[in-house]
Amino acid sequence: MFYVGVNFDITNIVAAVIDDDGNILVKESAPTLKYRELTEIIGDMAALIEKTVKKAGLDLNKDIEHVGVGCYGTINRETGVLIYSSYFGFRDVPLLDEIKKFIKIPVYIENDANCYALAESRLGATKGLKNSVIVTIGTAMSGGIIINGEVYHGAFYGAGEFGHHVIVLDGEKCECGRNGCWAAYASSTALVRDARIAAIRHPESIMFKMVNGDLRLMSYNIPFDAAKQGDIYAKDVVFQYARYIALGLINIINILQPDAIAIGGKIINIDETFLDTVSELVKEKTFGQKKTKIMLTEMNYDAVLIGAAMLRE
Amino acid sequence: MFYVGVNFDITNIVAAVIDDDGNILVKESAPTLKYRELTEIIGDMAALIEKTVKKAGLDLNKDIEHVGVGCYGTINRETGVLIYSSYFGFRDVPLLDEIKKFIKIPVYIENDANCYALAESRLGATKGLKNSVIVTIGTAMSGGIIINGEVYHGAFYGAGEFGHHVIVLDGEKCECGRNGCWAAYASSTALVRDARIAAIRHPESIMFKMVNGDLRLMSYNIPFDAAKQGDIYAKDVVFQYARYIALGLINIINILQPDAIAIGGKIINIDETFLDTVSELVKEKTFGQKKTKIMLTEMNYDAVLIGAAMLRE
Repeated sequence: MFYVGVNFDITNIVAAVIDDDGNILVKESAPTLKYRELTEIIGDMAALIEKTVKKAGLDLNKDIEHVGVGCYGTINRETGVLIYSSYFGFRDVPLLDEIKKFIKIPVYIENDANCYALAESRLGATKGLKNSVIVTIGTAMSGGIIINGEVYHGAFYGAGEFGHHVIVLDGEKCECGRNGCWAAYASSTALVRDARIAAIRHPESIMFKMVNGDLRLMSYNIPFDAAKQGDIYAKDVVFQYARYIALGLINIINILQPDAIAIGGKIINIDETFLDTVSELVKEKTFGQKKTKIMLTEMNYDAVLIGAAMLRE
Repeated sequence: MFYVGVNFDITNIVAAVIDDDGNILVKESAPTLKYRELTEIIGDMAALIEKTVKKAGLDLNKDIEHVGVGCYGTINRETGVLIYSSYFGFRDVPLLDEIKKFIKIPVYIENDANCYALAESRLGATKGLKNSVIVTIGTAMSGGIIINGEVYHGAFYGAGEFGHHVIVLDGEKCECGRNGCWAAYASSTALVRDARIAAIRHPESIMFKMVNGDLRLMSYNIPFDAAKQGDIYAKDVVFQYARYIALGLINIINILQPDAIAIGGKIINIDETFLDTVSELVKEKTFGQKKTKIMLTEMNYDAVLIGAAMLRE
């Protein structure tokens, strides 16, 4: 059997033909160009799907079991309504119905992070675990929860907003409009902010020199690089960043205690010792002899495509 | 059918004979006297169970289907091992086996807060809801999670430690040894601390007068009473306390998004407007049109007995 998995993202739409073992046979992408009418975007998505299937030497209507779409935002998994997407600015859009106007085989739609979690729990880092959590760290943070091997959605499809649980009452401003959210400390954007602040305070730091004093040039890899070169200020920024990440993980564990939490995103892979630092901080501060495992995800963002292809009725 | 529900607490052991509808027919209690050998304590528990059943005019071995025990601490629901109890100081005690030495009909054992959550979800405030959370606020805080109508235990029976998720990085010291936990802000102990601090800062406050300047006399009802009498400092203490409670609830919602969170404990009932204040703060700060309901529990601490009686294989 073959399936199509789609990652409907704010910048790109990616479609892939995927087999029963989760192998990607062909993968194609197109720009989302999000400021267009939704019908236009969906039309492009459908054309991309057709093209991808053709490139795999297959026929959409004969050879493909179904299309699964992973989409950024809160999705009603039953009705296919996109309840809310902060980046698209959509509210209560009947996304599945729109897609079905173009695609005549079964289509399923799910939040992208939930697709990610599903794929990892079936074929990746958390394979075979009963209860697991995926957290992705980038400019934003997202997450998915697997309970009893299935995606846990919460009452209104909004569970797993880990990035927006508060770790510092009245803390740093978050892009969600609230203050002190985990994402306002543990996202890559937050790390860049903290590195800039440290560089301002310590013009003698290697970080400051690496950007020639132009803080616009600060990026999330600079504090890691400067720390490796022995910059004590960068070491502090990186250690505090590890503490912030660890604190959110500890909170997730004290509430959900999954078998494992797998972390995805470039930043967690940037330095071979960084995940160990985070894991040690988590172990120190969680209860019980037996501990939730902290690990890396295995499948990178292709997991959204693969998880989308795994969606069923 | 009749069942025995037991609440094995650090100060008292309570046993009750309960019918199929969750009615308590007879209820008896005995002091735990926790600094004794466990066998002695369990012997007393067994005697109490016998006595309670006899008082109901029943025979333990003939008329009682099973005994369910709700116990403070982390319990392995399958093996009946008490993994950890901070107050008892127990670690890996085969509690179920100990009880079975005395009781010859089936016995089940579960964490007390999980029993509470189970009873509320079957017969109380959260009746019929698929996913719900119970939080109890007292000198300590505890909680239970119901997912798909069943108790959710987490990987190692330690899920639902809501009181020990951190809301203020490096914040107030918590009795668990960490800093900034929700319990260090939202427990009644925390409220008393904050009322004392406010009274020290503002000797002109009604709170200060109510304890005649003797801060040892401060109790959790004083800020509520003083606020009603118009004390602006007490009003602030109570409002901040509502914010702390709300923040933890918001975090639970952003992670788990249950259908409802029911709150138990005397403090949440102390003032008819307090829960409304908390609910409004939660509503303002959670995502989505449809909101997790914030409500009071209905069954008080008898819920532990009733939930224990509901335990099955």
